[in-house]
Amino acid sequence: MISEFDLIERYFAHLAAGGPDVLRGVGDDCAVLRIPDGQVLAVSVDTLVEGVHYPRDTAPEDIGWKALACGLSDLAAAGADPAWCTLALTLPAADEYWLAGFAAGFAELARAHGVALVGGDTTRGQSTTISVQVAGHLPAGRERGRDGARPGDWLWISGWPGEAAAGLAQLQERAVTIDERLLAHLNRPVPRVALGQRLRGFATACIDVSDGLAADAAHIAAASGVGITIEVECLPVSPALANMNRDRVRDWMLAGGDDYELCFTLPADQAPDPTGLGVPLTPIGVVDAGGGVSLRDADGRSTPVGASGYRHFGD
Amino acid sequence: MISEFDLIERYFAHLAAGGPDVLRGVGDDCAVLRIPDGQVLAVSVDTLVEGVHYPRDTAPEDIGWKALACGLSDLAAAGADPAWCTLALTLPAADEYWLAGFAAGFAELARAHGVALVGGDTTRGQSTTISVQVAGHLPAGRERGRDGARPGDWLWISGWPGEAAAGLAQLQERAVTIDERLLAHLNRPVPRVALGQRLRGFATACIDVSDGLAADAAHIAAASGVGITIEVECLPVSPALANMNRDRVRDWMLAGGDDYELCFTLPADQAPDPTGLGVPLTPIGVVDAGGGVSLRDADGRSTPVGASGYRHFGD
Repeated sequence: MISEFDLIERYFAHLAAGGPDVLRGVGDDCAVLRIPDGQVLAVSVDTLVEGVHYPRDTAPEDIGWKALACGLSDLAAAGADPAWCTLALTLPAADEYWLAGFAAGFAELARAHGVALVGGDTTRGQSTTISVQVAGHLPAGRERGRDGARPGDWLWISGWPGEAAAGLAQLQERAVTIDERLLAHLNRPVPRVALGQRLRGFATACIDVSDGLAADAAHIAAASGVGITIEVECLPVSPALANMNRDRVRDWMLAGGDDYELCFTLPADQAPDPTGLGVPLTPIGVVDAGGGVSLRDADGRSTPVGASGYRHFGD
Repeated sequence: MISEFDLIERYFAHLAAGGPDVLRGVGDDCAVLRIPDGQVLAVSVDTLVEGVHYPRDTAPEDIGWKALACGLSDLAAAGADPAWCTLALTLPAADEYWLAGFAAGFAELARAHGVALVGGDTTRGQSTTISVQVAGHLPAGRERGRDGARPGDWLWISGWPGEAAAGLAQLQERAVTIDERLLAHLNRPVPRVALGQRLRGFATACIDVSDGLAADAAHIAAASGVGITIEVECLPVSPALANMNRDRVRDWMLAGGDDYELCFTLPADQAPDPTGLGVPLTPIGVVDAGGGVSLRDADGRSTPVGASGYRHFGD
């Protein structure tokens, strides 16, 4: 019988080959990496737990893709060039079908971004738990976070917020027809790596939307010590949501998690070059000297979002 | 009620402060790190699962210590200077007593080695799963792994292999008296960081003993394409094991996991400076042009260790 270790080696070996910066990869106690001259390292770790971060019947290919996409989305927010990752995989059993699918989905996204798998640890546990740590390179001095937004900046969003949440709702409510576009956004989120790079030295603050647009905008407001007003009527409505209940669409757009779009601030006189990005960019609000996040409706009324965030569903 | 997030922030915030190389730490999508000029980065990830890698009733302080010690031991094997880490914590509930203890044990070891906690992810799951990724610095060109052992080298071991396994056996067998020294080695393994640094550019191969001495020596033999003969009578017997059953002691020394001692090869005419290391170093075998690991007994007979390794107990 083939051992768990051999199985994993079989399915992940082709990902272990690294570029010239991987001095030692899988097979030693440590991987050893060279950081290019003049660059700094951006790192992030994300964990997916079965039944918590994805439905139990999600295809293993999608789980593999998503496990890496979460981390690449963080690198995009930081404006880093993806370089390498490690994978800590806890599984109840060595299921060859699952491992093959997971590795295929993971590999598809890793290859698209030239990410080498340089280390990992596989352990047995009660439920599937996947921790991926990603690392990327960034020119020194170009670091950015959530804390640089200034009064007068505009707030921007990429893509169509709410698609992933709408897809999840359709699954959970066993909708008669599941919109393929929404499902794809839920299961195969596209990390906005090229956009993140393009915003380098340009965006004053950036975050990836994982908690929901209003909550993530609030993270920028708190870290930057500013207020943000979101113009609700300016939010880009996905074509897939155009004919749905308006209140629910609004909830999904403002509070839906798992979108992995970038929410960022730019000085008011600047706009990003959209050439070749493949995703729309929309200015959706303004930064002021106040605090917290407010929502301005069609009638011009501004409503502050409470301390607990804008949360009509979920927890 | 205090939220899980606030709890974790409270207990880990003091660890998040980093040195001059931590440009951005906890609080953004990515941490950003500077790698000192002329240095390369060594990284490793290790997962501990409750009930698998430590008994369920282990003190949370010890779990916190051990979660970091595993990674620091890998850095020691690579000869790296510990720098920073990330923590992915999956918990069934936000238990304040557990979190406080875990953070205290983790912090104690982190502070001793100047390791900054630069990022993390906390998630809810069925059972406690802890993945720690550590990173350290190493002068470029001084990388070493398992693959440099050459015929004529000697094999060395630090400390007293088998102590952790003997401690675990006493716990599992509900021994009338549990030896404190053995228990300490099991629950608070000391990563051999100073030794690993001292062996830089000196040891031809190095590994930390986590699978058991014979199995880990076999990893060196396989990676280096050499054979290794362990002189069983030369193994350093812990004073705590001196009066125990000789066969079991031998099993623990050769197959006991979790020791986190360093097993390394040096050219035959060289010996490491023991000054200030606080742990004995013992030459225990020789490297030849053959393959695999053999054990030479008091009577001079050499017995090859099978492909499945030297495993008299456990699995």
